[in-house]
Amino acid sequence: MKIAILPGDGIGPEIVAQAVKVLNVLGESFELETAPVGGAGYAAHGHPLPEGTLALAKAADAVLFGAVGDYQYDNLERQFRPEQAILGLRKNLGLFANLRPAILYPELAGASTLKPEVVSGLDILIIRELTGDIYFGQPRGVRECPDGPFKGQREGYDTMRYAEGEIRRIAHVAFQAAQKRDKRLTSVDKANVLETFQFWKDIVTDVHQEYPDVALDHMYVDNAAMQLVRAPKKFDVMVTGNMFGDILSDAAAMLTGSIGMLPSASLDANNKGLYEPSHGSAPDIAGKGIANPLATILSAAMMLRYSLNRAEQAERIETAVKSVLAQGLRTADIHEAGTTLVGTEAMGDAVVKALA
Amino acid sequence: MKIAILPGDGIGPEIVAQAVKVLNVLGESFELETAPVGGAGYAAHGHPLPEGTLALAKAADAVLFGAVGDYQYDNLERQFRPEQAILGLRKNLGLFANLRPAILYPELAGASTLKPEVVSGLDILIIRELTGDIYFGQPRGVRECPDGPFKGQREGYDTMRYAEGEIRRIAHVAFQAAQKRDKRLTSVDKANVLETFQFWKDIVTDVHQEYPDVALDHMYVDNAAMQLVRAPKKFDVMVTGNMFGDILSDAAAMLTGSIGMLPSASLDANNKGLYEPSHGSAPDIAGKGIANPLATILSAAMMLRYSLNRAEQAERIETAVKSVLAQGLRTADIHEAGTTLVGTEAMGDAVVKALA
Ligand SMILES: CC(C)[C@H](C(=O)O)[C@@H](O)C(=O)O
Ligand SMILES: CC(C)[C@H](C(=O)O)[C@@H](O)C(=O)O
Repeated sequence: MKIAILPGDGIGPEIVAQAVKVLNVLGESFELETAPVGGAGYAAHGHPLPEGTLALAKAADAVLFGAVGDYQYDNLERQFRPEQAILGLRKNLGLFANLRPAILYPELAGASTLKPEVVSGLDILIIRELTGDIYFGQPRGVRECPDGPFKGQREGYDTMRYAEGEIRRIAHVAFQAAQKRDKRLTSVDKANVLETFQFWKDIVTDVHQEYPDVALDHMYVDNAAMQLVRAPKKFDVMVTGNMFGDILSDAAAMLTGSIGMLPSASLDANNKGLYEPSHGSAPDIAGKGIANPLATILSAAMMLRYSLNRAEQAERIETAVKSVLAQGLRTADIHEAGTTLVGTEAMGDAVVKALA
Repeated sequence: MKIAILPGDGIGPEIVAQAVKVLNVLGESFELETAPVGGAGYAAHGHPLPEGTLALAKAADAVLFGAVGDYQYDNLERQFRPEQAILGLRKNLGLFANLRPAILYPELAGASTLKPEVVSGLDILIIRELTGDIYFGQPRGVRECPDGPFKGQREGYDTMRYAEGEIRRIAHVAFQAAQKRDKRLTSVDKANVLETFQFWKDIVTDVHQEYPDVALDHMYVDNAAMQLVRAPKKFDVMVTGNMFGDILSDAAAMLTGSIGMLPSASLDANNKGLYEPSHGSAPDIAGKGIANPLATILSAAMMLRYSLNRAEQAERIETAVKSVLAQGLRTADIHEAGTTLVGTEAMGDAVVKALA
């Protein structure tokens, strides 16, 4: 089993190092190979997704990804900016299914900006389509406005689109995920305005016939954003497109107040996947040894479960993470009075110790 | 001064009636004329935006709008559904600037699902572009997928677009609104992915040169959704496109926990406007006399300020609303122990009394 390790920028290398430490004590014989990505890829090879890095990711059974982006790359032309690496990996590896759990650990209920009764016990799964929609749709660009009151002026434009097969496959992933949970799926659309999402709604409704044991409902994206704030625990699994999923999954993660705890998986049709923390590269705290490595460690657990067929190892890691929380260990992002403040390495070491 | 009164569906007629009552006691000689819209328009004339209703709205100096939508219209073809009325009014009247204040009244801090310290004193203004973007962009529809791995299948598609002049005019509205407040403007985009919003960002940055007294920052939409949950009070004025604004303004409204209190204004280039509560038609409670009329009454106040040049009357109404809250009067949606539960009419009467 070969795992591509892509630490990236900012706090990426520090947090990935802890996850690697954890992987190394599991007693498995994984082959880990590291390559630069994002700003680090640009610095080393003049491109955020260097050819060698892409080749490694393609050849591997799974990819463990840190985070990309740092100040010095902010003013590069768009095609060279760090985030192009993540878009390129998703597209080239066909990682169409993004799984983003939003879980509030009981010990961290205080970290949320929401009242405890609104979020305690929160456990929702957002499934975001990741290789379609307006993220990749053509044509796009800046052109002369062809008609209407602004005719002749410059205009920026993009194309939103979803083909039937693209909607079907993500719907299957979502219904199957719901079957393993509370059997409730909310499909989020904007069918009242967008043709793309009326079509999305129709296809999801059709796929539902194959999953009569799952209760399906449809919700407009603006209402979904409201309900996530009002009563997030009412949701079980949510499925939506790439653009809406980008917004809603981040909002849902922030409900927990502890985005430093949240992993993510991006899967292809054969359960090969890329695993990364839900948070970003946080260049402001990079190199200080204070970043929370748990989201990355939990991403490694998701990798073991979904791509490497090692569900027991995944559970071992998840149990170890819960036990370090129960011990009261906290990195700065989740620290509160009465708990023990630790750094990135000490947190990684504590998980390793808890695994033993 | 002529005001078009469009009550619409669900609780629309009940809440608009209270706002009309308030307008009638101001001692102004407004001419009010009522017409059906939404489902009521369809029921009366076979179209959600009947010709007579549109003509009235065009002829009037301002439009006071209730809400549209009810169960019996849910399965109509899209072009006949109630929400087409609101899209049609926006487009036909050129109402490109949507102003959505999210204000938390101190008396209602408990209604929020967020912790009091996170939201108390919240006062942000979201400015949403309302006649462009993917809401109206052509082409759109369902077609045969022209290329890629799904070639030949059906696909739904839409066009996102913003012309330079469209971005400039909403940017001017936003900078000028910020000048009247705390002089801070956050422009929300997705420039890292979308050509439309890289262009948006460039134009907003250019317009900023004319407003050196306003501090401008740019934020990605996913991050904006997170920051609204994490630290909403950090914002002053936010400006964004139609689609992102739809999502963010609803999320921001829900932060207050009292969306029944929030008005909105949709303005054209000459400050003619349509005014409506931020909440919907709530058909589940229609006809029960329990809906909160304050958002509609406060929308009438915005109308007096922006379209009818009666700022003092607007303030009188706003002060009257604050005083009924201070008296402890609450409709069911904002009721809590220790306050007095009142119905729609009684709340309207209390505002009228407070005005006297
Ligand atoms: C960096 C950016 C391109 C990316 C996205 O929009 O998908 C990020 O926000 C994410 O959610 O992974
Ligand atoms: C009803 C719908 C078309 C509308 C919109 O999406 O603009 C509504 O959500 C709103 O925000 O006024």
